Amino acid sequence: MAKYVYLFKEADGDRKDLFGGKGANLAKMTSWGMPVPQGFTITTEACTKYYEDGEKIADGIVEEIFEALAKVEADAGKKFGDEKNPFLVSVRSGARASMPGMMDTILNLGLNDVSVKGLAAKTSNPRFAYDCYRRFIQMFSDVVMGTPKSEFEKIIDKVKAEKGIVSDTELTAEDLQNLIALFKEVYRKHQNSEFPQDPKVQLIEAVKAVFRSWDNPRAVVYRRMNDIPGSWGTAVNVQSMVFGNMGDTSGTGVAFTRDPSTGEKKLYGEYLMNAQGEDVVAGIRTPMTIDHLAQTNKAVYDQFVEIAGRLEKANKDMQDMEFTIEEGRLYMLQTRNGKRTARAAIKIACDLVDEGMITEQEALLKIEPKQLDSLLHPQFVAKALKQVKPIAKGLPASPGAACGKISFSAEEAVERADKGEKVVLVRLETSPEDIEGMYRAEGVLTVRGGMTSHAAVVARGMGACCVAGCTEIKIDEEKRVIFIGGKKYTENDYLSLDGSTGNVYGEQIPTEQASVSGDFAKIMEWADKYRALKVRTNADTPNDAATAVKFGAEGIGLCRTEHMFFAEDRIPAVREMIVSKTVEERKVALAKLLPMQREDFTGLYMAMEGRPVTIRFLDPPLHEFVPHKDDEIKELAKTMGLKFAELKETVEGLHEFNPMMGHRGCRLAVTYPEIAEMQTQAVIEAALAVRKKGIEVKPEIMIPLVGEVKELKYVKDVVVATAERILKENNATMEYHIGTMIEIPRAALTAEEIAKEAEFFSFGTNDLTQMTFGFSRDDSGKFLDEYYSKKIFESDPFARLDQIGVGKLMKIAIAGGKSTRPDIKLGICGEHGGDPSTIEFCHNIGLTYVSCSPFRVPVARLAAAQANILNPRIKPQPAETRYLIEN
Amino acid sequence: MAKYVYLFKEADGDRKDLFGGKGANLAKMTSWGMPVPQGFTITTEACTKYYEDGEKIADGIVEEIFEALAKVEADAGKKFGDEKNPFLVSVRSGARASMPGMMDTILNLGLNDVSVKGLAAKTSNPRFAYDCYRRFIQMFSDVVMGTPKSEFEKIIDKVKAEKGIVSDTELTAEDLQNLIALFKEVYRKHQNSEFPQDPKVQLIEAVKAVFRSWDNPRAVVYRRMNDIPGSWGTAVNVQSMVFGNMGDTSGTGVAFTRDPSTGEKKLYGEYLMNAQGEDVVAGIRTPMTIDHLAQTNKAVYDQFVEIAGRLEKANKDMQDMEFTIEEGRLYMLQTRNGKRTARAAIKIACDLVDEGMITEQEALLKIEPKQLDSLLHPQFVAKALKQVKPIAKGLPASPGAACGKISFSAEEAVERADKGEKVVLVRLETSPEDIEGMYRAEGVLTVRGGMTSHAAVVARGMGACCVAGCTEIKIDEEKRVIFIGGKKYTENDYLSLDGSTGNVYGEQIPTEQASVSGDFAKIMEWADKYRALKVRTNADTPNDAATAVKFGAEGIGLCRTEHMFFAEDRIPAVREMIVSKTVEERKVALAKLLPMQREDFTGLYMAMEGRPVTIRFLDPPLHEFVPHKDDEIKELAKTMGLKFAELKETVEGLHEFNPMMGHRGCRLAVTYPEIAEMQTQAVIEAALAVRKKGIEVKPEIMIPLVGEVKELKYVKDVVVATAERILKENNATMEYHIGTMIEIPRAALTAEEIAKEAEFFSFGTNDLTQMTFGFSRDDSGKFLDEYYSKKIFESDPFARLDQIGVGKLMKIAIAGGKSTRPDIKLGICGEHGGDPSTIEFCHNIGLTYVSCSPFRVPVARLAAAQANILNPRIKPQPAETRYLIEN
Repeated sequence: MAKYVYLFKEADGDRKDLFGGKGANLAKMTSWGMPVPQGFTITTEACTKYYEDGEKIADGIVEEIFEALAKVEADAGKKFGDEKNPFLVSVRSGARASMPGMMDTILNLGLNDVSVKGLAAKTSNPRFAYDCYRRFIQMFSDVVMGTPKSEFEKIIDKVKAEKGIVSDTELTAEDLQNLIALFKEVYRKHQNSEFPQDPKVQLIEAVKAVFRSWDNPRAVVYRRMNDIPGSWGTAVNVQSMVFGNMGDTSGTGVAFTRDPSTGEKKLYGEYLMNAQGEDVVAGIRTPMTIDHLAQTNKAVYDQFVEIAGRLEKANKDMQDMEFTIEEGRLYMLQTRNGKRTARAAIKIACDLVDEGMITEQEALLKIEPKQLDSLLHPQFVAKALKQVKPIAKGLPASPGAACGKISFSAEEAVERADKGEKVVLVRLETSPEDIEGMYRAEGVLTVRGGMTSHAAVVARGMGACCVAGCTEIKIDEEKRVIFIGGKKYTENDYLSLDGSTGNVYGEQIPTEQASVSGDFAKIMEWADKYRALKVRTNADTPNDAATAVKFGAEGIGLCRTEHMFFAEDRIPAVREMIVSKTVEERKVALAKLLPMQREDFTGLYMAMEGRPVTIRFLDPPLHEFVPHKDDEIKELAKTMGLKFAELKETVEGLHEFNPMMGHRGCRLAVTYPEIAEMQTQAVIEAALAVRKKGIEVKPEIMIPLVGEVKELKYVKDVVVATAERILKENNATMEYHIGTMIEIPRAALTAEEIAKEAEFFSFGTNDLTQMTFGFSRDDSGKFLDEYYSKKIFESDPFARLDQIGVGKLMKIAIAGGKSTRPDIKLGICGEHGGDPSTIEFCHNIGLTYVSCSPFRVPVARLAAAQANILNPRIKPQPAETRYLIEN
Repeated sequence: MAKYVYLFKEADGDRKDLFGGKGANLAKMTSWGMPVPQGFTITTEACTKYYEDGEKIADGIVEEIFEALAKVEADAGKKFGDEKNPFLVSVRSGARASMPGMMDTILNLGLNDVSVKGLAAKTSNPRFAYDCYRRFIQMFSDVVMGTPKSEFEKIIDKVKAEKGIVSDTELTAEDLQNLIALFKEVYRKHQNSEFPQDPKVQLIEAVKAVFRSWDNPRAVVYRRMNDIPGSWGTAVNVQSMVFGNMGDTSGTGVAFTRDPSTGEKKLYGEYLMNAQGEDVVAGIRTPMTIDHLAQTNKAVYDQFVEIAGRLEKANKDMQDMEFTIEEGRLYMLQTRNGKRTARAAIKIACDLVDEGMITEQEALLKIEPKQLDSLLHPQFVAKALKQVKPIAKGLPASPGAACGKISFSAEEAVERADKGEKVVLVRLETSPEDIEGMYRAEGVLTVRGGMTSHAAVVARGMGACCVAGCTEIKIDEEKRVIFIGGKKYTENDYLSLDGSTGNVYGEQIPTEQASVSGDFAKIMEWADKYRALKVRTNADTPNDAATAVKFGAEGIGLCRTEHMFFAEDRIPAVREMIVSKTVEERKVALAKLLPMQREDFTGLYMAMEGRPVTIRFLDPPLHEFVPHKDDEIKELAKTMGLKFAELKETVEGLHEFNPMMGHRGCRLAVTYPEIAEMQTQAVIEAALAVRKKGIEVKPEIMIPLVGEVKELKYVKDVVVATAERILKENNATMEYHIGTMIEIPRAALTAEEIAKEAEFFSFGTNDLTQMTFGFSRDDSGKFLDEYYSKKIFESDPFARLDQIGVGKLMKIAIAGGKSTRPDIKLGICGEHGGDPSTIEFCHNIGLTYVSCSPFRVPVARLAAAQANILNPRIKPQPAETRYLIEN
């Protein structure tokens, strides 16, 4: 029969999957003879079974719990509910991956009307004992039984008011005894039963509550943000209570083996004597630094330092430890790999290698790739940030720090930026026409829209700072003012945006640039050494390309040519092309775009210095390039010398019921091959131009939205004919390649056919996700929240690749592609290309490269290295233990 | 080395794939010693090679052609270009499947300035010879070289005007010689070269032209309409010319072995003495019936009757034959299985079985399933139809005949139908709100929209007559008039619509109902005997259901509950539900819908008399149920007692960028489980109600748009909980089943998971096609025409299932579903379920049933039988020859 409950001294400290992080570490510390208050762990499997059984703890598990309890009681020489020497426990969650503060904890369990007397006697502190009891009633009622805390707080307030006192600490032992009676009354009223006096009943109910807390909303959200599967479940640790508040020889504290902010190697922490953990948190007294303990209790300090050293060495990582001193005796309550800043993570990883404690590979596995992001963007100067308070908070849509004066429209942002002014663009929401303004602004702030709104997606792509969905802002675009918290801000006021936190500040805050040298450079060097996947970037401008090269990009995996079409100087020609009635008219308009596109590509090639550049041909539906409101159409008609009615008809003719599934991608090139001709000409002529400057490019032309090989063949024929004509005219030859996006399910399903024409595949996982799930990113916001809360989805499929469904299509496509063309180059250029878990998947299924936004390039390099260390694809490595990245 | 050219006497008459239908039959007739003018066939493989080689005939093939030519010349004792005894040939296309009139033919090839004299001498008819030559120049220039016919017609007109004559026949031999000189001049001007005098050059150019004509636009369209693959190619038949115009002992004619209109067993045909085929077509002289030949030339008549009998017996089918009598001698020019009406097809198939000529299975294979459609709808009385002329023509969007007064809106149609008036609904285009009006009208006529427009799709589903996209009509809805060809029609005028031809008539024409007895019933009985697939129907009303039962439906495969929601008496409650702000409000509105839904289902169950009924839960996005124009919203707000601004906000909140990929299907049930609860209650309570009437139903509840098993699980839990509650309340038990649509690629890809919850799968191939191709049916019209003309697509993937891509997903889903649940029931309920080629595919991949609109049920029964005869899935049959259904 399966065993679900283990004493700390029985459990296997290497089985975090079974005992959770906390339980495994308690087991380890116990096995190493460290002073750990004893107890037992109920496994994660018990949690899974609890849910499978319809939220019930099986009888067998209850029995196991009581057996373990009896053993621990016997060892401690104490008894649950004893009047003289009561056994009290804490009941804590402990998942495989650390989820701090997400789940529930119950302290002082075992108190009842009898054992509270025993505690009073043992501590010689009746006030403390009764305070513990009333706290326990409150905590148990709230966490376990769902009676709101506020019900109890109201009573405390009433009692205090009656007594004319202000602070809780002024309540006497008698006051607390009275309170306990009132609290039990509240419990009775709400639960229709007496507060349970049987500690065993308390215990089982508490265990259930911890299991339930695995699925509370904030835990579900946390898991979604951190890629933690819902199937893991949490373990429950039942541990003897020890008290740091038994007088002046008792105390409690927290310490790190290294500085979690800087990574500096020194014991770092604080403690309070005669206190419980709560008091440290409450901040009533100022804690001492850990060094101070050396002066007051050298023996305990030395013992702690020794234990800390052993723990760091054994766990090969910086430790975060909780300890309690009970009447001069040290107890270790828990240890774990400590959370740390990105800067500290990098320094610690490098130092541990220098100290010979870990290998380079292990060092790479210790850094959470996503964390790097924060190091790559400009940040507010830390000291300056401490002196200001945010005036509003939105969603942290795209990291970085931005500071500038308020600009109300994209055009205005461009104009003012041209004059050298620093502006932030503040909009209700953004649309494709705003691209240039977004690009020129320091940062973007929107009132509406979520993490996958236009503003958020585009800003992340650009590496620009963006705070989205800041609903506290009221914009009056006409009067050119915004209101935040009742205060008015105009175009002359500064805003500062923190894209990593979502904070908005109403003043100027200085920023500082990221540095990619030192330890950071060393980590990147190691990452490059151990990875198999190539890392390219999605870049549409020379500026983006240069940033990406600085961050280590090995090529451009996706240049979206349409972004160039939106620029102010181009859009007139684009619109002229759209309203053209004949091929000839269209060619005239395209001829105007040609020199600009050629210049675009020349700039990109120069910035990439000979690295491969993949250029995707025009993708979006044409209606994105024209205005839709009558007055805008009128104005445009005037500018273009057209009749309003005529232009309106053209615009209406472009209307689509489902633009995502409309006339776009290669369908444009099939109907208007002259667009592909112009783009090919620009690609080849630009390559010829940079050749003169000594840079040799092998352009890669990527045809979007292919679903049938004959589509690709048709467009490819146009491209090849044009390219060959241009080369012949220039009396030149050139290596160039033609491939396709795989972003339509049918392309994946018929990949063996597609590969007959395509020299490379690039997975466009944004569209592929939309089509595979059958919902559009723009519309899914209406129901996805409900899907998360009903546990239908655990993560946003647009942020983290759906490896099951979309992943299956990718595997089908890879198998098909390779069967036709064994050496086919395979990449990914959807937004997922910058997501570490997706990168690991891409490595495992055998892609050649991932392509992501410039600021994600270092993230991808690290994630790619981790993937290859865990599952070596090239030059097989000695087997590494799979580390759970917990930092 | 491959052989590409075969003499008729060498070719294998059973290889239509290689020699085309015409070539194979010529070979057969030759082998049977029938009098066939000899010649040779260039194979379909040569055509394929011609395209592969970049529209060139390989040298080897040219050589083979000349070798074959030499042999035929030798046999005939004639020579190409000879002055005395010139060898002349016809060059005709001949594809595997008959494509009458789609490709090109060149007659009298071999004529030049020299041989024309030989022809004149041989026929003793110089006028005839020169007329042949000028026709040949004209035909060759037009068909082979692309010089427009009209250039020559202009010259003829000019010459006739100069001579003051009206008819071509008045031109003398000299006039014709002059014309020939002028024609050659035109040729020279257009082609920059002399008219080719070398018959071998003429021949090769003509062969190329026939190959090219395989891909002319009308052939491409014909193939798309008839599911003929573009890869087949055409053969070319080069045959010695014989002349029916060599005097009074010569003649030419066409005959059928049975009456192609009625199927009656008697020789049916006509001929003209001293004439060529062209003259019969031209209609200058009135041909004689074939019986007449018995009186004038008994020997030839008897010979012909004997040959006709042998051909019918050998080909086991009614024959369509062309013959020529040259100086008293009979020549058979070709024979083929004759085209026939649906009525004739059924009679002939039954008669051939009665005559012991074919088996039941062979009889079933001889009927084109699609043809049955025309027998099932009301038709105009044939005699009446002959006396009228159409006033306009639109697309034949949904078959049948309809006659009624003009109604300008759906509401008006309902009102007037309520009063017993017969109306046809005339609209610019229809929308979901028009459903009831469409249902109540006799037929629907729209100005805009194609074969897959809303009107067309819905009308086909209903079995209602519809003519769509009739652009000749101008509607003035305000003034309540329409204009056709300048004439005004009002609400008091009758229109008659023929949904099978697209014709619109400006008067009343009597209609007659379809009959499903007699031979038709016999065919259906045989079909049921030989098919493995079950056939269900898509029906939303008791009326539809009853029609389908009459046509042999074995159950309902899809009841779209939303169609019920649009009815006038329900939509207020539906809207009330939509604007509800709380679950409670929503439940109040749903409670109003409950009795109506229950009544709907009761009616359906009654109509189906215990056959299985699959009910799909609410599918469309909610915005389809609310108006979107300000004035309509204002009116609705008034009716509902809401503020305009409030209602407008609700309506705008429902807006979706891509409604097809939005908040619909099971996503509605996940966010508003109370809708699923109400629908479940109605399903179960209705089943309990009909149980009292002695009808036992096992309801099948189908959850739409599932992409992830947890979605299905969530909704299923709601359904089961509700169903069990209702049953418990009624102290009853009931067998009911819960399954899902497979219409999202991800559902197909994860079918092994989905099948854990789903008891059946029904492929929703409309949506599955949209998602797999990544284009919406509503928007693809903008580019699909271009896709056909550029040969990227051969057929409309919404009409004929894409067996490659979508089919692959279906196979993945079937394998997945069966791996989890080996006995899973598998169906299809998309519009494809009524398409014969799709039905064959569904049979082959192992579906349990197809479900189609009521009028398609007999089509599906026949197609299912054909599929099982060709590829037996149950009780293996003796191997049947695969007949190409050519009729």
